[in-house]
Order: sequence, then structure tokens, then C-alpha cells
Amino acid sequence: MNDIYKPVQSDLEKVEQALEATTHAEFPLLTELLAYALNSGGKRIRPALALLSGKFYQYDVSLLVPMAAAAELLHTATLVHDDIIDHSQVRRSRPTVSRAYGENRALLLGDYLFAKAGRLCADTDNLRVIKLFSQTLMTISGGELRQTAFVFQLGGARDYYYSWISAKTACLFSLSTESGAILSQAPEDVIKALRNYGHYFGMAFQVVDDVLDFVGNETEVGKPVGSDLNEGAVTLPTILYAESHPEENALIRKAIETRDAKLVTSIVEMVRTSPVIAQCLDIAADLSSRAREALDILPDSSARRSLVALANYVVQRRK
Amino acid sequence: MNDIYKPVQSDLEKVEQALEATTHAEFPLLTELLAYALNSGGKRIRPALALLSGKFYQYDVSLLVPMAAAAELLHTATLVHDDIIDHSQVRRSRPTVSRAYGENRALLLGDYLFAKAGRLCADTDNLRVIKLFSQTLMTISGGELRQTAFVFQLGGARDYYYSWISAKTACLFSLSTESGAILSQAPEDVIKALRNYGHYFGMAFQVVDDVLDFVGNETEVGKPVGSDLNEGAVTLPTILYAESHPEENALIRKAIETRDAKLVTSIVEMVRTSPVIAQCLDIAADLSSRAREALDILPDSSARRSLVALANYVVQRRK
Repeated sequence: MNDIYKPVQSDLEKVEQALEATTHAEFPLLTELLAYALNSGGKRIRPALALLSGKFYQYDVSLLVPMAAAAELLHTATLVHDDIIDHSQVRRSRPTVSRAYGENRALLLGDYLFAKAGRLCADTDNLRVIKLFSQTLMTISGGELRQTAFVFQLGGARDYYYSWISAKTACLFSLSTESGAILSQAPEDVIKALRNYGHYFGMAFQVVDDVLDFVGNETEVGKPVGSDLNEGAVTLPTILYAESHPEENALIRKAIETRDAKLVTSIVEMVRTSPVIAQCLDIAADLSSRAREALDILPDSSARRSLVALANYVVQRRK
Repeated sequence: MNDIYKPVQSDLEKVEQALEATTHAEFPLLTELLAYALNSGGKRIRPALALLSGKFYQYDVSLLVPMAAAAELLHTATLVHDDIIDHSQVRRSRPTVSRAYGENRALLLGDYLFAKAGRLCADTDNLRVIKLFSQTLMTISGGELRQTAFVFQLGGARDYYYSWISAKTACLFSLSTESGAILSQAPEDVIKALRNYGHYFGMAFQVVDDVLDFVGNETEVGKPVGSDLNEGAVTLPTILYAESHPEENALIRKAIETRDAKLVTSIVEMVRTSPVIAQCLDIAADLSSRAREALDILPDSSARRSLVALANYVVQRRK
């Protein structure tokens, strides 16, 4: 990762400083909560994508650093709220904010982080980016709301899954890359290319995440294997498995509806040891290559090479 | 109220249309939730304040209507989240969103409303107003977060109360009036005057709200009497009562800590029938007159008369 981040390393440190400055709050509890949420060992992929995407035209650190920090804060806010909704206890090998501080404080911390992210985004003084930012949060929260009415049905399951992960994950990556492009005054075709890169990157990222939920090493992934199905989330591995095992569909549906621990564990085991894992990784590889192809219109440069390398990394990672 | 709203009545209808347009969402559940939250019989005071505050210089309906709608959405979002935090069952004589649709959906609806409010605010294309909007949400959520660590102590209780209601209530009123002034290109002294008006208006509004929680008619107020103390919220009537009855402080503290229903009811009854209610209303009247005095630099006009009348109304209302 250090090699990949090299073209923007010094500015990523400025993003880190901006995030750190965020934690200097008006009262100790807020400072403590912000520090807990932000010093979580995240890989800062979204800030890196924003900075790298800003490297092709007018690279303006005074605009890109607040935007990169805003993307990370928005991401953090959605995680904090997601963990309330899913009753998640552990993230990145630590208690979630809601587990450590209670759901009420987690809810309010998320709200504060949304607002602070919006404030940093507004520091770019760029109305297009500000509108994109608001639109992104509408997409994320709307998508999660739609997911609360989710009922597993095999017909259309893949399409539903793709639109879900586009809303919950990919749009935050495309916000990062698109806003980097906009803030560097890139022409429209480049803005579109970098938005597409972010979108496909995010789709690949989420498919891999969903695979790791089945096959990952619990210590590396930082949360229990099979968490998704346990929370009623039907992701690509389960969908592919259900498609190729129609006789198991009733059982899968029962596991989702009852969340019976034994049943969920047995389905996780069946999916984990089946060929669908390899098929999912193929799909992720395809999405990643679409991300790379979107970069074709850009000239060769260290930033472009890093974006290519990140798209490769995202489908090879183990955590 | 109709008389007071008269100078902006037709534009308030445009705000209503903008709010209604918000409910036309991508999927039925979101439409239903938005309609439930927005058609709640609210008095639309914040939109009216934004429009009236925009009446003194360049009144531009294309900027003021989205801003007025944004203020109402932001207000609605904070109510939806507050009701999760307080486990409130009833608001305005109806089940709260969290009660009717569950806490998860209420949480996500609030997030969506924040984002949509931000999006509408960005439609003003005014960076100063956009930054003020983000700052306001930081103040509100930060203030509520601070309140989660609240421990009742008689020393400093009034100051704490005023800073709390300034953050949770008054800043949304001052956002409305200040942004109305900014968007109408008012000079700085007028912007400041209308911000101060909104602040004192909001402080008076909340003090009266807190009085009505003790003495209001349950049907008119739309929620049970004594709700605040029942949720551990120590408001001005309880503080004044505690100040004048030091011998009861241990009992009051016990009621807050244990939330014992019988004990809370008995304290509500003691406060309700004591002279502190009248004292609180005097304080509200004083805050209201400070709001009116802030308008002294403005010329006489129908908008100014409405702002004066609203400041009078707010301390006389029964619900």
C-alpha cells in the first residue's frame, strides 16, 4: 500500500492531520468519541482515491485535502450508523462505537460526523461537489432504507444485490474519484471516466468484502465469519449458491428469516466450501478490470499507475 | 397564525409543494416514511421565519423557498432521531416514526432527511448559507451528545440549560432567520439582528415548550404531561423549583436517576402547582422581548410586524 499511495503520501498525511484536527472538539466526550471512531486503523482508501483522482489536471491541495477528509468522515459516519442498525458488536477487531458507548451516542456521533463531513466538503467552495456530496448521502441512506424491506427472492436477486452495493458502497468511492476530478478542473470526459473507475472499484471492493465474510480469517477481517447472513444480509456468494442449488432455497430462506444460529452456520459452511467463492472472485476481477479500463483515456503517470494498482489490490486483499 | 403568515402565505405554499415533492421518492417505503414524517401537522414556523427574514432586501423566492424547505427538513430529521434517543412513543398525537416503523428505519429516514435538507440548502448556491447549515447540524448533534453525559447539579444548572436549548433549538431558528437575511443580500448589521432575533425567539420557544410539558393540555400538546422529566431531561421549571427548594434536591436527583414513575409524577405535580411556572413564563416573555428588540434596526413593514407578532405568539401559545 505504501508504494501505491506514494504519489500522494505527503498529502495523505495532511488528510490525517485534518481528521485529527476534527477530534479537537468542544467537550471531552465528543473528543473521545471522534478519536475512537477515526483512529480505527482504516486504510484511508477513499481519501487516497480523491487525491489520486485530482492528480491529472490542476492538483490543488487546499481543495483536495478537505474533500478527501470529508469522504473519510462520511464513510465513518455511515459505518457508525450501520453498526447500530445491524447490532454489530465488533469492527476491525474492536468493539463498535455503539457497543462501546451505547446506541444513542453512536447515533448522535454519526449525525455529527455527517455534518462535519458536509462542513469540510463546503470548504472546497465548489457547489457541484457539495451537491454531489448531499446526493451521495441520500443514495446511501435511501439504499439502506430500501434494504430494510428486503425479502429474499431468487428471481432478480443479483440485480437487487448490485443496486444495493452500488448505493451502499460504490457511490462513496465514485464520490471520492469524481470530486477529485471536478476539483482539479478536469474536462467532463475525464470526470466521467474517474466516476466510472470509482464505481467499478467500489463494486469490486464490496464483492470481495462479501467473499471475505465467508472465507476470511477472523483475526484479519476483524469480525466473525458469516456475520452478514447472521444479520439477514444476502450477499453474492449466497445468491450464486442459491442459484446453483434450487433444492436448498427453502433452507436458505429459513436461515434468513429465523436467523437460527445453527442453520446459518451450516449454510455459511456450504457456501464457503463451494465453487461459488471462486465465481464471486471472478466477478470481482471483472469489475476491477472495468475500473482499470475506465482509466484508458488518461495519460500514463504515477497517479494512474497507483489507481491501476489499487484496483488490483482490492481484489487480492485478505482483509 | 394565518394573519401572521400573510406576507409570505403564497410562498409558504411553495415551500409546502417543495416538501411534498421531496416525498416522491424512488421506492414506496421511502415515499411512505417521508409522507408520514412531513405531514405531521407541524406549524412550519422555521420556513415562515426564513421567508419573513428575507423580506427586507432582495426577496428572491427561488433561493428562499429551498432554504425554508431545508430548515423544515432539518428540523424534522432531528425530531425523528430525538424520538429514537428518548424512546418517545407519541409526538403531535401520533405514534413517532420509530414507534410506527421501527428504530432502524427511523434512523435511516433521519439520515436521508439530513441529506435532502443539505441538497435543498445547496440549491441556494450560496456558500455562506451552506456552511451555516452544516455548522448548525454540528451544533445540534454535538449539543445532544453532550446532554447524554448530563448529571444534574444545581450549581450551574441554569447556564447549562440555556446552552443546551441554544444548541438543540435556538440555532435552528437562527439558521432560518440568518439564512433568510443572507439570501436577500441584507447588510451585515441586519444579518446579525435577524440572527439574534432567531436566537432569542428559539430560546423563548423552548422555555415555553418546557413549561407546556408540565402544564399543557395533553390533547393539545400531543404528548403526555411530564415527558421530559420521565426521560431524564431537567428543564427550566425543575431547575427553578430545585433552586427554591434545596430540601427537595435529593428527591429530584433520585427521580432523574431512577426514573421511578411514581416519584416523577409527584415531582411533576409539585413543580406544576408552584410559582416557578409563572417565573418561567416571565423568563420566556423576557427572551421574546429581546427577540423583538433585535428588530429595532429594521423599518416598519408587514414582514417586521409578523416577526413581532410571532415572537408574541410563541410565548402565548398553548401547544
